Amino acid sequence: MNDKKLTTRAADFSAWYNETVLRAELADYSPVRGCMVIRPNGYGIWERMQRALDDMFKATGHRNAYFPLFIPESFLHKEAQHVEGFAPEAAVVTHGGGKLLEEPLVVRPTSETIIYSMFAKWVQSYRDLPILINQWANVVRWEMRTRLFLRTLEFLWQEGHTAHVTHDEAEAETRMILGLYRTFMEEGMAMPVITGLKSESEKFAGALRTYSCEAMMQDNKALQAGTSHNLGQNFAKAFDLKFQSESGSMEYAWNTSWGVSTRMVGGLVMTHGDDNGLRIPPKLAPTEVVIVPIWKSEDERARLLEAAGQVKQALTTWGGRGDDRLRVHIDAREGMKPGAKYYEWELVGVPLRLELGPRDLANGSCMAARRDTREKASLSLDGLPETVSALLATMQGDMLRAARERREANSIREAISYDRFKEVMEGDGAFVYAGWNGDPAVEAKVKEETKATIRCIPEPEFVTQGAATTCMVTGEPAKHTVIWAKAY
Amino acid sequence: MNDKKLTTRAADFSAWYNETVLRAELADYSPVRGCMVIRPNGYGIWERMQRALDDMFKATGHRNAYFPLFIPESFLHKEAQHVEGFAPEAAVVTHGGGKLLEEPLVVRPTSETIIYSMFAKWVQSYRDLPILINQWANVVRWEMRTRLFLRTLEFLWQEGHTAHVTHDEAEAETRMILGLYRTFMEEGMAMPVITGLKSESEKFAGALRTYSCEAMMQDNKALQAGTSHNLGQNFAKAFDLKFQSESGSMEYAWNTSWGVSTRMVGGLVMTHGDDNGLRIPPKLAPTEVVIVPIWKSEDERARLLEAAGQVKQALTTWGGRGDDRLRVHIDAREGMKPGAKYYEWELVGVPLRLELGPRDLANGSCMAARRDTREKASLSLDGLPETVSALLATMQGDMLRAARERREANSIREAISYDRFKEVMEGDGAFVYAGWNGDPAVEAKVKEETKATIRCIPEPEFVTQGAATTCMVTGEPAKHTVIWAKAY
Repeated sequence: MNDKKLTTRAADFSAWYNETVLRAELADYSPVRGCMVIRPNGYGIWERMQRALDDMFKATGHRNAYFPLFIPESFLHKEAQHVEGFAPEAAVVTHGGGKLLEEPLVVRPTSETIIYSMFAKWVQSYRDLPILINQWANVVRWEMRTRLFLRTLEFLWQEGHTAHVTHDEAEAETRMILGLYRTFMEEGMAMPVITGLKSESEKFAGALRTYSCEAMMQDNKALQAGTSHNLGQNFAKAFDLKFQSESGSMEYAWNTSWGVSTRMVGGLVMTHGDDNGLRIPPKLAPTEVVIVPIWKSEDERARLLEAAGQVKQALTTWGGRGDDRLRVHIDAREGMKPGAKYYEWELVGVPLRLELGPRDLANGSCMAARRDTREKASLSLDGLPETVSALLATMQGDMLRAARERREANSIREAISYDRFKEVMEGDGAFVYAGWNGDPAVEAKVKEETKATIRCIPEPEFVTQGAATTCMVTGEPAKHTVIWAKAY
Repeated sequence: MNDKKLTTRAADFSAWYNETVLRAELADYSPVRGCMVIRPNGYGIWERMQRALDDMFKATGHRNAYFPLFIPESFLHKEAQHVEGFAPEAAVVTHGGGKLLEEPLVVRPTSETIIYSMFAKWVQSYRDLPILINQWANVVRWEMRTRLFLRTLEFLWQEGHTAHVTHDEAEAETRMILGLYRTFMEEGMAMPVITGLKSESEKFAGALRTYSCEAMMQDNKALQAGTSHNLGQNFAKAFDLKFQSESGSMEYAWNTSWGVSTRMVGGLVMTHGDDNGLRIPPKLAPTEVVIVPIWKSEDERARLLEAAGQVKQALTTWGGRGDDRLRVHIDAREGMKPGAKYYEWELVGVPLRLELGPRDLANGSCMAARRDTREKASLSLDGLPETVSALLATMQGDMLRAARERREANSIREAISYDRFKEVMEGDGAFVYAGWNGDPAVEAKVKEETKATIRCIPEPEFVTQGAATTCMVTGEPAKHTVIWAKAY
């Protein structure tokens, strides 16, 4: 790593983001246009995300499976809206084993079609339902403008796919998953999100209804961090996914699908990063605590390394968090000054640094530096696991609170004119809560004129100042209170 | 599930295998030729394999990362042997986003080329080495004849890729991983393997040396279950992966790569399955224990379900295996007789079944049925977690022992004539330890005449009756003792 200062967020947020991702070695550009390499520092965060979400999916009755990467081109065409949404972005395999294929294969952009064709084979009776399946996979969408983690040709994600007997059961699943995503993003990522319904023009190609989690980045732009779709019977009809009901009639199943992706890593960076680099919320940090022993002489070195080993041992064997042991690393590199190490671990975003020098050791203490606030305090080595564990929990909560306060400080909840709205969107941006008459033409006009879009029709709990009565653009009666913002 | 009997292994091993995989719902055929769907029962085993291996990789200093699915076609051509091996099997993307690509992209059949091109970017000095990386990914090889799990167009695997300062360090890594695979296969899968060196004609396209783990299936055919390659400097030269050495000179790095795949699930089935279905070694079983409560009346049902819940609670909260809690499921399905449930769980291969009826409950006991031996015994509910845990450990050891005895009973270690060898290969097959003069022409002739191939030049510990002195085919002095067998 070089030790040049990062471009500041205030100077150029976009440059700051790219530099942070590259210099913290989260990811790198690859020789394939639009495809990235996820390096160990970034993949370690993704693994923590995967583990937490996977546990939540399993606790709610889902099981993992794996479906083919390739989808016959004709499958995409079976659902009219779906093909319209995804065919233009398709990567197409035309040759295999040196021969031209009879039917081209599309590299999956999402797996509704192939998965529901299999469900149709497995389901005969209502007794076979619900099916609750999740897949961890790579998908490909031929994007023209790409950004590391945020928009890449290939990305990693999970896609849940379920089939149910009734609409209401599918709707309940869709909403349950939306809530599960929100819980993970807030409690795991310390990233507050607004949940709500997408407008018709922004919903998933083939869905009845799409719900999303919308987070505010530090440049006041929105990041759609996860979506949950009630697919109705659209795919069931396209793929003949029928079952015999309890009363003996043949009916189409009701499907849901839902997904989050490596895009969340980008969201984490843009939610928590500062001008010194990344700040990882403790729960998702592959390393929560880095111990930096400080020595001058060879004799000190031996003593300090031994002491650091003992501290690590005490932390990692402590059982106060149950099976979730503290994740600790000792930075014993030679020929590198402590300050250079601090700089690097701050860039990489490790939540807590423990500095251990001869004087600390003599005092039975160490110096702790929080990455989030950069505050330092001396901690006693007695009872250190409890202290560290409590401190990490405090940081996790503080980071969520700080992000929520930032979002609210940059939200406009009082009624504003469309002219004022344009000024805001040309300036610092914001989440603007405003009335909308429900007309897609108005939505299109605003997007055209300001680049802002309707992020969602938020769930009632987020509309704290009461529903809007008039449309911000036309002055007509409002059908919904919506959130407008520019978005990634 | 239907309750038709499986074809027996003796009647038709291949039909038995397919039926077992399909009926135990490990996998299914997909609408894409040669691609399979891994269903939850199969994926659950793969997840256990992943978790165990991933822990072992991390404990030996490796970190996970992710590289692009697509490889520019020109990259494959940079290493002469590599392109010869993999180009004929390539799936090629020619169109993206509705346009013909300037350069076609190959869907990765393996990732040496793309990964070492990135290493070349990251490595400047000997201080940047070693790089120890692993990737969990899907790969595609355009196979013509496919078999569920054993050979499919797309499969899931892990591929480790490392770079080192010296040949010897790379060789040590290659061998360390070979040993790690063996440990996992024997201790986790209860599948004994022979480790050894591949002949020149069987080594990986682009490698200096390939080592493999060879297991014997119940039809006496070999399954290559994992490979570890010392790549020498072949790829470093092709991708200009150089570093400045401690003395200041520029040198090419030394690489290794190594992988195991979902093929192991097929190996597990063919090692342990019996005529009643699958038998999963406890360590890899997503469910180790299934509790089947037995009731006649509604009143009994409530009591038995409650008791089953208590038994499950006692088992899953027991801490005697540390963080590795017992994995327990209660089969509370209604309208299904206990016998039908037993049949199904035997087919699916759950290691231990606990039957809990009113009389058992009154006695403070339950009836335990081992899946491996199908022995039944009454167990006291007092201290059940300890008893069950010990029983599962016993089963794990017994399954490995049984598989090893089967292999040895079907190995021929005494010198045999080539005529006798042909008879063996036309008959039941075997692992034949025999002398080979080292000539590839002899290897090709035997393959042509008997379909048997040299599985490996086994490590010395497997050559228990002393090295062969003469070549089985030519009578000339033997250069190596090798193992001949037909293989998947």
